[in-house]
Amino acid sequence: MGLDFDRYTPLLQDGGRMLLLVVDGLGGFPEADRGSELEDAHTPNLDALAASGITGLTEPAGPGITVGSGPGHLALFGFDPWRYDLGRGVLSAVGVSFDMKPGDVATRGNLAFLDDDGNITDRRAGRIPDEQARPVVEKLRERVALDDVEVFFEPESEHRVVVILRGEGLDGRIDDMDPQEVGVPPLPAKPQDPAAQHTADVLDRLDAAIREALHDQTPDALLMRGFDSLRDMPDFTDRTGMRACAIASYPMYRGVAQLIGFDVLGPPTTMREQIDLVAQHREDYDYHFVHFKYADAAGHDGNREAKVEALENLDADIPALLEAAEANVVAVTGDHASPASAFGHSWHPVPTLLAGGSAGVDDVTTFGERACAGGLFGLRPTQHLLPLMMAAAGRFAKYGA
Amino acid sequence: MGLDFDRYTPLLQDGGRMLLLVVDGLGGFPEADRGSELEDAHTPNLDALAASGITGLTEPAGPGITVGSGPGHLALFGFDPWRYDLGRGVLSAVGVSFDMKPGDVATRGNLAFLDDDGNITDRRAGRIPDEQARPVVEKLRERVALDDVEVFFEPESEHRVVVILRGEGLDGRIDDMDPQEVGVPPLPAKPQDPAAQHTADVLDRLDAAIREALHDQTPDALLMRGFDSLRDMPDFTDRTGMRACAIASYPMYRGVAQLIGFDVLGPPTTMREQIDLVAQHREDYDYHFVHFKYADAAGHDGNREAKVEALENLDADIPALLEAAEANVVAVTGDHASPASAFGHSWHPVPTLLAGGSAGVDDVTTFGERACAGGLFGLRPTQHLLPLMMAAAGRFAKYGA
Repeated sequence: MGLDFDRYTPLLQDGGRMLLLVVDGLGGFPEADRGSELEDAHTPNLDALAASGITGLTEPAGPGITVGSGPGHLALFGFDPWRYDLGRGVLSAVGVSFDMKPGDVATRGNLAFLDDDGNITDRRAGRIPDEQARPVVEKLRERVALDDVEVFFEPESEHRVVVILRGEGLDGRIDDMDPQEVGVPPLPAKPQDPAAQHTADVLDRLDAAIREALHDQTPDALLMRGFDSLRDMPDFTDRTGMRACAIASYPMYRGVAQLIGFDVLGPPTTMREQIDLVAQHREDYDYHFVHFKYADAAGHDGNREAKVEALENLDADIPALLEAAEANVVAVTGDHASPASAFGHSWHPVPTLLAGGSAGVDDVTTFGERACAGGLFGLRPTQHLLPLMMAAAGRFAKYGA
Repeated sequence: MGLDFDRYTPLLQDGGRMLLLVVDGLGGFPEADRGSELEDAHTPNLDALAASGITGLTEPAGPGITVGSGPGHLALFGFDPWRYDLGRGVLSAVGVSFDMKPGDVATRGNLAFLDDDGNITDRRAGRIPDEQARPVVEKLRERVALDDVEVFFEPESEHRVVVILRGEGLDGRIDDMDPQEVGVPPLPAKPQDPAAQHTADVLDRLDAAIREALHDQTPDALLMRGFDSLRDMPDFTDRTGMRACAIASYPMYRGVAQLIGFDVLGPPTTMREQIDLVAQHREDYDYHFVHFKYADAAGHDGNREAKVEALENLDADIPALLEAAEANVVAVTGDHASPASAFGHSWHPVPTLLAGGSAGVDDVTTFGERACAGGLFGLRPTQHLLPLMMAAAGRFAKYGA
């Protein structure tokens, strides 16, 4: 924790190109009668990559902490996730290319179903597809207006909608209004600081206006969470000397990368398109960040078989990805664990492999939690990965005489 | 090191019950021709518990540091042992339920034998039993008085006596007067700071008065060490949301737990009584701390066979302890290593196991230093254990979006 990247910047020198493959929700845990999803998946290409390099386990924000994707990715990019704690709303807003201004407050909304008593019956409105969600967002744009505050609605993906508030005296320190469970009503806005009371009042009016606007639509409400305002972030290229690009199918992951100065490519919609973008822009960047979403989604749904299948599908694409990147150094890891048995993110250390350059080789020949526990990379904070990738690619001069 | 528990407190949520079994002085080190005491002991029940969870090694206060029981236990309870450095005197005073006041200075004394030249011949007065030590302490109470400072003597156990000084301008920053070796005289009081000069003068007068008081007793002197004054400690329950109890046969371990807000049960005098207390108070607490003393005592005496036997005796009690606790999550570790070959505490990382809840399982099936080195828990600061136990018991919400 708290790795200070300012120590590395004066040591920068030119070095090899690198590929970071983030398998969202990669980690899990073995149980008495079965392995983790990664251990049980048939992944010959990831195993071969692990065998060609060194392996270990990474913790994004300290022992026992379950992180969201924001802190998980910031740690992968070498940032202290406790120092830079971004709300999901800001990440999502940047991810849909919304031009946030200082003072704006952003939040992530889920289109949801309520019953006649106003209790939530489905937090994701049946995972409504994009083409059905967009007209609903259009209705919100037409029908919802507040006197004193500008409101912007931006479709993200499926049931996910970004909401941005713009006006005087807004403050993002508001608890989630999404209770994250069914059978209860959405929560009223609760300020975390007295200075946010005005914003809480605005949000309660906004929530009422949204429900009124959706009275003739299929989803009934928008569950808002992850309130935050934009703040300054250090620039990845200034820190590392590397031109970096993000190749991600989901907006949030493009968002976090863009906030720290990555170029955002695409957006791609399939792994095949992601691989093509890597190949097309191979020479344009020193650091290619490729985000694979589907293991995490299966973990959230508690679908062990789907997570295993997603990992096996990814594995089949590994040779093409490596060929497209022609990277000197490759790392494969996750932003956090998402075991199906947890129905969401978990605290477990994430399997991590580092291959190429001067990374070296250990005796681990399969990519899985137990195997990685014995690897040369060791058990480390996730923040350590970036400097180790850069070191393997020869990007640091010696410290001290 | 320096794990900041303030980061965890905002994430607290309800979760499972847990049992921490501290085997005092658990760790040791394998040598060329034999294993550590734990490795060589026949411990089928601890092995089975290790096989049902994940294993690793813990370091209480950083690599190479040999800790006393105070820092060792504070680290187990999630406190930074460098930030909260309590003297043994304070721990012992609280452990015997002495009501310390701010400004008091406490110290631990050993009744000892001196030869005619005033050199120490036995630092523990032959491990004088309680019933012989108590009359000696009564004599000290009757005969020792200083003009300007109140002096309290409290028997702890066997040769151990707590001494508390109460008066104006006392300062606990005094080096140990116990040289911790035989053949030399007790040391004069040496202040670590000029502000403690007055206290050093008081202690030299006290030492003379004690020797005079003991002129017709079997022990000849009291070797004083671990000087400290009481300071504020954060409350464990406030930090963790857990009601905690301490079930320990020795006063010092009850003392450290009480200082941070544990309820102290008993005191028990045998492991059987400890197990009964766990069962009786199973539902009253979220966190049961059970302290097993006898492995450490054998280590101090350099008695390898006795340490092995103590571990085997403990092992036989493990099934009853687990049954009594019915805990969601169980951890077994030590507060520090005490290999018999070191005749005391040592710096070696301590074998640690974590089982139950979402801890998962690794491939380690025996509980020992070398086996644990390959486990999924990894090599960690001892301070990591508490948040990992709590994470496995589902006691933390997600950090960040």
